[in-house]
Amino acid sequence: MKQVKIALLGLGNVGSGVWKILNFNKSEIFKHCGFEIEIKKILVNDINKKRYLDIPDGILTNNFCDILNDDSIEIVIEVMGGAYPALDYMIEAMKKKKHIVTANKLCIALHGDRLFETALKEKVFLYYEASVGGGIPIIKQINESLTANKIEKIVGIVNGTTNYILSNMTESNMSFDKALCLAKENGFAEFDPTDDIEGFDAAYKLSIMSSLSFEAPVHPNNILREGISNIRIKDINYAKKFGYVIKLLAIGTLKNNSIEVRVHPAFVPKNHPFASVKDSFNAVYLKGNAVGDLTIYGKGAGDLPTGSAIVSDLLSILRNNLNYCGINQARNLNNKYDILPSDEIESEYYIRLNVKDKPGIIGDIGTLLGENNISISLVTQDIQTKHQVDLIFLTQKCKEKSIKNFKEKINNYKNLNKLENIIRIENLNN
Amino acid sequence: MKQVKIALLGLGNVGSGVWKILNFNKSEIFKHCGFEIEIKKILVNDINKKRYLDIPDGILTNNFCDILNDDSIEIVIEVMGGAYPALDYMIEAMKKKKHIVTANKLCIALHGDRLFETALKEKVFLYYEASVGGGIPIIKQINESLTANKIEKIVGIVNGTTNYILSNMTESNMSFDKALCLAKENGFAEFDPTDDIEGFDAAYKLSIMSSLSFEAPVHPNNILREGISNIRIKDINYAKKFGYVIKLLAIGTLKNNSIEVRVHPAFVPKNHPFASVKDSFNAVYLKGNAVGDLTIYGKGAGDLPTGSAIVSDLLSILRNNLNYCGINQARNLNNKYDILPSDEIESEYYIRLNVKDKPGIIGDIGTLLGENNISISLVTQDIQTKHQVDLIFLTQKCKEKSIKNFKEKINNYKNLNKLENIIRIENLNN
Ligand SMILES: NC(=O)c1ccc[n+]([C@@H]2O[C@H](COP(=O)([O-])OP(=O)(O)OC[C@H]3O[C@@H](n4cnc5c(N)ncnc54)[C@H](OP(=O)(O)O)[C@@H]3O)[C@@H](O)[C@H]2O)c1
Ligand SMILES: NC(=O)c1ccc[n+]([C@@H]2O[C@H](COP(=O)([O-])OP(=O)(O)OC[C@H]3O[C@@H](n4cnc5c(N)ncnc54)[C@H](OP(=O)(O)O)[C@@H]3O)[C@@H](O)[C@H]2O)c1
Repeated sequence: MKQVKIALLGLGNVGSGVWKILNFNKSEIFKHCGFEIEIKKILVNDINKKRYLDIPDGILTNNFCDILNDDSIEIVIEVMGGAYPALDYMIEAMKKKKHIVTANKLCIALHGDRLFETALKEKVFLYYEASVGGGIPIIKQINESLTANKIEKIVGIVNGTTNYILSNMTESNMSFDKALCLAKENGFAEFDPTDDIEGFDAAYKLSIMSSLSFEAPVHPNNILREGISNIRIKDINYAKKFGYVIKLLAIGTLKNNSIEVRVHPAFVPKNHPFASVKDSFNAVYLKGNAVGDLTIYGKGAGDLPTGSAIVSDLLSILRNNLNYCGINQARNLNNKYDILPSDEIESEYYIRLNVKDKPGIIGDIGTLLGENNISISLVTQDIQTKHQVDLIFLTQKCKEKSIKNFKEKINNYKNLNKLENIIRIENLNN
Repeated sequence: MKQVKIALLGLGNVGSGVWKILNFNKSEIFKHCGFEIEIKKILVNDINKKRYLDIPDGILTNNFCDILNDDSIEIVIEVMGGAYPALDYMIEAMKKKKHIVTANKLCIALHGDRLFETALKEKVFLYYEASVGGGIPIIKQINESLTANKIEKIVGIVNGTTNYILSNMTESNMSFDKALCLAKENGFAEFDPTDDIEGFDAAYKLSIMSSLSFEAPVHPNNILREGISNIRIKDINYAKKFGYVIKLLAIGTLKNNSIEVRVHPAFVPKNHPFASVKDSFNAVYLKGNAVGDLTIYGKGAGDLPTGSAIVSDLLSILRNNLNYCGINQARNLNNKYDILPSDEIESEYYIRLNVKDKPGIIGDIGTLLGENNISISLVTQDIQTKHQVDLIFLTQKCKEKSIKNFKEKINNYKNLNKLENIIRIENLNN
């Protein structure tokens, strides 16, 4: 019987999931790879912390060298998160010829170059299915199942925290702040939720998916990024009124010789399948020039779904008998595409303004929109108090630059109380 | 530069798709596998047939030996369809150490044992992604992306012809016969559509998916199978009235130590994602004990989508440098499960009867249902003419056996004009 020794870096949410799966599904896993897997060491911060797992003595360590210098450990599963020291640990482990499986979107998105270079040089596997979409096998799909295609578009709902918050705001008419609190209480948001709420996490994931799909480098810094902290219950309700729900979308498009990449909240038609993606579920749509439209939908987070992706990656290594084979593996980012400047990105928009209750205001604002090349498809007003009116404009497609110009101008308009919100409308009809 | 010579068996729908993709996406494909691919020979019935492809002279042949005996051909793509001679051709080719990619669900479902045995013995690859779900990479998902899981359930809409017909009946209030004609006209149904309409095609696909998922042999003959030729526009409309649409479902469930497998039309809740799977789109839902719910949705037929699956399989072989590696490949059907006898399968049902217009009939039929252990959840009647009434019963869960007994009895009931239809209701809430 073949045996392999592995180590985990981290035993939090995902690490515990991996531990559970390797124990519960032992017999399935053995059948699927022909190896008996021993978790020899697990790196944690605090070896004395109470853990609700039955970990034998001598396995937990807080010293990475116990893993690095143990030549019997052939695979390292990195599920500690963060850029440092995780990045260094992975690189050092690869230099010792250990294969890596990681769930770390931040490291792959920001430091992928160094990681893949090291993997290539050291001839070790570096798998990262769990870094995007939790349990959804989107990386393997792009890398192995769609190799006959030129991929032209990706649209994803890839952040569970924001999706949970937006679902609650939509279904229970809850304020953003209350929905965020609930998300924290129920383990759907971190203590510091900035990364999720402001769209960084989704941008890392979009960076990983677009780089792979378009085979060109897409750095998170080049992604247009807006979070959801500005979404108010009023916006949710206006969206409903017009037949939409608000979702945080990650969109990558190959256009002629440039790539358009953006993460932002958007109005999505309420009868589109993406509108029904609830809570911590994720969905990713891909368009390939041969396969056409392909959508995958499943659990984007959680110990067992994420663990499923990690353990399946681990089995991919074992099924290759730990023998590195380059081409399945290496990221090829040789295409020369420009990243479309964010000013040039086109969308339809929803614009909500609070204005004085006077005649002629719709005309004034309509003129200002027109002067900035923005065509209106719908205007409606909603009297709030005796002296205030909500004005909603839905626009036709226009450039981000036009919206920026309009924003600057409107803020000087004497009858404006407040420019409340501007949100893109994505009809997702490809 | 590495080069490989391949042959196609068949240049119909799918074969043409493969040809087009290998030409249009040449540069992507080269990047993805490192091989230049030459299609050296293509087997067809009639080499003089007009084909709308630019095939150089000397490539078409109607003699399989031209391919079999050409040692320079290392991979054979079987897209001719049918059991014979396709099965023999594949086996002979494997004996000459040629790898196989096939789209032939019939051969895999009915003769998988012989095919996989030969592949194992000859140490050649045998890939068949295109045999289920056209462009949807469901085989790779089960075989490679969910290896950490014990798979517990599969539900699929996997037949484009029936889905196209049912979509048209539902949306355009079209009769079954008219929808079938339209399907033929638009290339969505064969001249003899029996295989699709009567659920054989879906049963082959379910057999392939369940064998793989549950790792036990599931022969198509052991699948409960009903087609859609009995569905009337009235049933479609009653379904609508109760909040459902009718779909042909393929369902495989692992229950304790037995497998339940069935293909039949069913009422599906109209707000369930499966209700929106239109025309030739396919969808497959899987439940794994680690990953949870996972759904994949895309084009289930057509030259390019199916070609996408075939060419991606071809690239899997090339990425392994044509070196056979057993474990990725072999089907493991060693689990010992019984197939649940169809009498024991439980469902909710919709029952439509045409009866005389007399008092007491609902009572009589209700009693008869009760005597057969069938509980009613709803009854409604609809007067058709002065003397005839449609009665609709929706039942709670009951066994197929109870329904069979009821059917026998009701046919002797004096006030029955006709037992019009019995259709299962699947709420798909896992
Ligand atoms: N949570 C999800 O659903 C999910 C989904 C997809 C991907 N991911 C990714 O998976 C990774 C892990 O996420 P998680 O939710 O499991 O995190 P977590 O619950 O915070 O767990 C982190 C683990 O790493 C250990 N650790 C952290 N820093 C360390 C250090 N410097 N030295 C030693 N040990 C250290 C911690 O030790 P202690 O236990 O002693 O504190 C803990 O066991 C992240 O990259 C995340 O982005 C998570
Ligand atoms: N169509 C789809 O969308 C789809 C999707 C998934 C899977 N599939 C599977 O793919 C396979 C092919 O389907 P298809 O729709 O492409 O079929 P098709 O259009 O009928 O094409 C069959 C091809 O095979 C050739 N052929 C058939 N029998 C032959 C024989 N005995 N000797 C030599 N050549 C022979 C025909 O030659 P001629 O051209 O000279 O007649 C034709 O080129 C089937 O197994 C099918 O189930 C199809």
